[in-house]
Amino acid sequence: MSELEGIFNPKSVALIGATETEGKVGQSVMKNLMKFKEHGGKLFPVNRKYNEIYGIKCYNSILNIEDAIDLVILAIPAEYTVDAMEECGKKGIKSAIIITAGFSESDNKDLELKLKNVIDKYKIRTIGPNCLGVINLYSNLNASFSKEFSKIGNIAFISQSGAILTALLDIAEYSNLGFSKIVSMGNKIDIQEDEILRYLENDPNTKVIALYIEGLKDGKFISAAKRISRKKPVIVLKSGRSKEGAKAVSSHTGSLAGNSEVYNAAFKKSRVFNVEGFEDLVNLLKIFSVQPRMKSNRIAVVTNAGGFGVLAADSVDKYGLELAKFSKETVLELKKYLPETSKISNPLDLIGDADVERYRHAFELIEKDKNIDGLLVILTPQGMTDSLGVSRELVKLKNYMICKNEKMPIVASFVGGGSVMESRSYLQEKGIPAFICPELAVKALACLYRQSILRDKYDSPEYLNKIRKEVSSVKKDNHVLIKELLENPNESNSKEFLKLNGFNIPKKFVAKSVEEAETYAKSLGKVVMKVVSSNIPHKSDAGCVIINPANIKEAFETIIKNGEKYLSEKNVDGIIDGVLVEEYILGKEIIIGAKRDPVFGPVVMTGLGGIFVEVLKDVSFGISPITEEYAEEIIKSLKSYKILEGVRGEKRSDINYLKELMVRVGVLMEVYNEILEIDINPAFIKEEGHGGIVGDALIVIQNKLK
Amino acid sequence: MSELEGIFNPKSVALIGATETEGKVGQSVMKNLMKFKEHGGKLFPVNRKYNEIYGIKCYNSILNIEDAIDLVILAIPAEYTVDAMEECGKKGIKSAIIITAGFSESDNKDLELKLKNVIDKYKIRTIGPNCLGVINLYSNLNASFSKEFSKIGNIAFISQSGAILTALLDIAEYSNLGFSKIVSMGNKIDIQEDEILRYLENDPNTKVIALYIEGLKDGKFISAAKRISRKKPVIVLKSGRSKEGAKAVSSHTGSLAGNSEVYNAAFKKSRVFNVEGFEDLVNLLKIFSVQPRMKSNRIAVVTNAGGFGVLAADSVDKYGLELAKFSKETVLELKKYLPETSKISNPLDLIGDADVERYRHAFELIEKDKNIDGLLVILTPQGMTDSLGVSRELVKLKNYMICKNEKMPIVASFVGGGSVMESRSYLQEKGIPAFICPELAVKALACLYRQSILRDKYDSPEYLNKIRKEVSSVKKDNHVLIKELLENPNESNSKEFLKLNGFNIPKKFVAKSVEEAETYAKSLGKVVMKVVSSNIPHKSDAGCVIINPANIKEAFETIIKNGEKYLSEKNVDGIIDGVLVEEYILGKEIIIGAKRDPVFGPVVMTGLGGIFVEVLKDVSFGISPITEEYAEEIIKSLKSYKILEGVRGEKRSDINYLKELMVRVGVLMEVYNEILEIDINPAFIKEEGHGGIVGDALIVIQNKLK
Repeated sequence: MSELEGIFNPKSVALIGATETEGKVGQSVMKNLMKFKEHGGKLFPVNRKYNEIYGIKCYNSILNIEDAIDLVILAIPAEYTVDAMEECGKKGIKSAIIITAGFSESDNKDLELKLKNVIDKYKIRTIGPNCLGVINLYSNLNASFSKEFSKIGNIAFISQSGAILTALLDIAEYSNLGFSKIVSMGNKIDIQEDEILRYLENDPNTKVIALYIEGLKDGKFISAAKRISRKKPVIVLKSGRSKEGAKAVSSHTGSLAGNSEVYNAAFKKSRVFNVEGFEDLVNLLKIFSVQPRMKSNRIAVVTNAGGFGVLAADSVDKYGLELAKFSKETVLELKKYLPETSKISNPLDLIGDADVERYRHAFELIEKDKNIDGLLVILTPQGMTDSLGVSRELVKLKNYMICKNEKMPIVASFVGGGSVMESRSYLQEKGIPAFICPELAVKALACLYRQSILRDKYDSPEYLNKIRKEVSSVKKDNHVLIKELLENPNESNSKEFLKLNGFNIPKKFVAKSVEEAETYAKSLGKVVMKVVSSNIPHKSDAGCVIINPANIKEAFETIIKNGEKYLSEKNVDGIIDGVLVEEYILGKEIIIGAKRDPVFGPVVMTGLGGIFVEVLKDVSFGISPITEEYAEEIIKSLKSYKILEGVRGEKRSDINYLKELMVRVGVLMEVYNEILEIDINPAFIKEEGHGGIVGDALIVIQNKLK
Repeated sequence: MSELEGIFNPKSVALIGATETEGKVGQSVMKNLMKFKEHGGKLFPVNRKYNEIYGIKCYNSILNIEDAIDLVILAIPAEYTVDAMEECGKKGIKSAIIITAGFSESDNKDLELKLKNVIDKYKIRTIGPNCLGVINLYSNLNASFSKEFSKIGNIAFISQSGAILTALLDIAEYSNLGFSKIVSMGNKIDIQEDEILRYLENDPNTKVIALYIEGLKDGKFISAAKRISRKKPVIVLKSGRSKEGAKAVSSHTGSLAGNSEVYNAAFKKSRVFNVEGFEDLVNLLKIFSVQPRMKSNRIAVVTNAGGFGVLAADSVDKYGLELAKFSKETVLELKKYLPETSKISNPLDLIGDADVERYRHAFELIEKDKNIDGLLVILTPQGMTDSLGVSRELVKLKNYMICKNEKMPIVASFVGGGSVMESRSYLQEKGIPAFICPELAVKALACLYRQSILRDKYDSPEYLNKIRKEVSSVKKDNHVLIKELLENPNESNSKEFLKLNGFNIPKKFVAKSVEEAETYAKSLGKVVMKVVSSNIPHKSDAGCVIINPANIKEAFETIIKNGEKYLSEKNVDGIIDGVLVEEYILGKEIIIGAKRDPVFGPVVMTGLGGIFVEVLKDVSFGISPITEEYAEEIIKSLKSYKILEGVRGEKRSDINYLKELMVRVGVLMEVYNEILEIDINPAFIKEEGHGGIVGDALIVIQNKLK
């Protein structure tokens, strides 16, 4: 049994801080818990001051209750919570909801730490503190100080803001959205979002999950969300995406809003709907809570207003849906019933004077048409329009399809004010989401489609595991060398370290003489020659770099001559150690970087080098672990991806090699905890099948000042 | 007096097709016109079948009416409209609204053409056909078959779709939006949107203008919209932006949706609000119809829900506003009244238990704080919340500021369902726009700010006129030569033509001997050498192009040798005419193109060459005329603009020269009607102050097959 059963399905509940005093949180929670008791739950108010609350025996200490307690709720001042939880621990209680505020969000971090110690000591699974509480509508449990809410349904809402929760519940009542479980997370001293997601995965009463998040505490969210997303849509509203927003987050719940690009990458990897605002959240709940999956992206649009039909068609394009091509039968039948001025096309314009009959007839034909897998019905109040009549026909269509087990999503956009309000409410009530304009309806349908085709595309860990094994065994076998390299991770050592771990680095030799240079050059093919001297910092400026020289002897002599000239001109007391003869690499310049995010752990970034990263900021992030398929997805999300595919007559680059690099970099970050950053800039990716080479690299190690 | 006075402010109106028969358009219009008569207007029903309609004398022909008629309205079958308009012309009527449908939108293009001929013959200014009609709420004129609408206000709405108009009026009633003038455009046989915009510019009753457009007939819209935009916000909803949408447009009103990139450029040049959907249109009307200008972008956000404060802060960043820094006095005062847990920051979190008093107090301080120029008030229904009370305080604040003539925009976001519906309605009624979520409120405020800072930035035509004069005089002085060049506009002639018109082209010579080549190369500096032979198409592949050769003699000989080898290997019976010695240009590759758009006329496009245009599709469009400042704006809207400014140690490119090129290309398209396209690809832009050179160019001439 899940450790969260005690939170969501307790048989016995104690409320510490219960009271009858109006305006106190303990009173609101007490009143909300009465229903739990009415339905057979055991309820134990605890408060030193009273013998009885609302006619129920009140205890002066949790320790005096004889029964076992499944769940304790705290609604007492912050300073008493630590002792109270100590008692709960002694009593053997395993689940708690701490509503009390006044901890880290009020700069009272020490108190929160003490509280956490007690909770950890007794392993009490705890929600809060500083939260509204928890509601499970299927067990009549309202363990919160939210006002009464009873709209039962299939939405689970997990919120880091009590007020956003309250607002959503208020809207829900109006928009006919019903809930299964509602959790106000508060300061998240113990239970995090991922555990709740795991719990909800198999909750038969929950069909869709929404979260409001200000900041996550760790990266476990990703795997939990990714797992559940395959079964149930997960919608996330993350605030604090901007600089101003992040500031506001820290003064709101004391959370860290984090790097919004990393959060976006995390949500993308999690396969959740990362919505941009509260309106989108509500609109997606509207559709996901009632509509079935969509078999294909081909939808029909039926309208009595041509203009809105056009706007819907624009949105269909924008959001990646398709306007279905009506079957021959549909077209023939439509012609019989529609006025001559109506052109039989999709969007289907029933013309401004469309009556209920005309809509009904269209619905029937669409239901039969195998080319159509989704329906948007648009209506504006015109002279002849009977919007309630059309709504009823639409509901009939829905019910008919349910009976035939031929489910197809239906959404409505009844555009108008007073004239269509009632119809919109009626439709919502009957499980057909009604939007105020067609664009929002299409956007919601598109999300439904996305969820329907959701597959876990990057979960084949074979290649990743192979690299993991390889890198781990390199670590074991080269213990001493690696320690040495990472002790002083300069460019050369960083590259040697990468080489040990399966990265290609340019072949190079230091030539002390023309003859040596000529021998090396012969073995390397095209080469770059550079002076080797720690006293010549800007080698190019000193004329000491020659790319792809035609004559090795001449190049060697020129470099030595220019180097000596530089040293003497600058009056530098230095020496020339020789001439580096290095493989000359042609290929696409790529940057790969890795850092450790405080929340999500290793983050791997890539982008095309030069202006693409530096000017156009075209980079893409992935969160470790990086499988091969995930690496591909990250690479493909670059705007400049096409360049890797080969443009203007160029050959396709070795994208597989780039994927390998990303997987390897991800694994290095996993295996070597001491590595803070890896910066490969550039790597050269050759044409397909030819691999690539790390041109330059730098590794940053923990506790090393650079 | 404007020619449109007869449409909007007639003293006498005739309705051809008036009837008492329910369900007929002529009856709906007749009933709507009764109010006009009640208020002293003269109304003349015309219908052969009746002597009297609703007690008013009915005429069997317009010619039998003795009074002068300012406006005639036609609501008769399409086939009778031509004769009817002929009679109207004879009667001397100068204004008409043709409601009748059945013209080009029903593939009846001939009939529309006949109608147009009559209208043009008598110069009758006409709205329609195939429209809903016209409403002027300030002259009690409802010359439409829309249902009764009486919400008077300051919004003018011009719509190419009757149904969208109807839907907006329905929403208006509900959202307390009032209108001044409403025009259903229909097929736009005569009067276009631009004329109505010009008319509305000085209409004292109109403060904001909204348009729904499927397609424009010409480019006059731009100058009209640009002019009025300086005084009054213009909001445009254009449909048919996508491929699917464009198809739907053509089956809806028979309009052509056109190239959406060109439309976007046109709207940008017009300085209108080019909204993405119907919801945005409504939201902008909400704010523009009631709120004053915004002095700066510094706003205050007051909330009883921290989470929504954070979401608002995110939007503030996203939409380019700023969170004001409260003055010291404000902070001190706030501290006195707010609970200790409230951190005094902006967004200002009044905490969930905020009562009316706490809001009121914050409003007072914000009103006094000189750092604040806009206010967003967020409220969610929580335990203590009195949303109607807060609304009343907000309205008081607004009225107080109006009294003091210290106008500051105020918007509200009361997030919730039933608990805040009444408050939202109340606020709307009192002129405070209320949005369902903070993101939409901030977006609307940002538009208000954009309108407030709107300046016509590119209206100094001096430079443009100078180029115009120059190009025109070149045309006059080189009549024969230009005719010759444009007769066969191949690459060489195209470049010569451009050279004549002030463009730099590379200096080049054809060398017949090594000696000639050496002389030319000396005069040019760095050069490119290419074989001259019409029989060698791919010169590079044949080894016949050498860039920046070190030794001219060697290069000449290599090119000749490779050329001859190519010809003999391919068994081509060709000759080599010599070696082209051309100036070698270094600079940023730029593409400039010009085409004629069927609606907007010459459109000039630019972008950085190579991958930027070809792979990243990073191009920017401008619509002729192109002034210097406008050219700059077009260039700056490129994503790759930064590259022109100089990155990675490169010098800034000569952006002024690029501007010159764009202005010149625009002027060429103006002066030479026979030019269909100009394609400069590439031009090389050198570093700042050094101009640039047209590397390659091709001109396409009308009626020339290429």
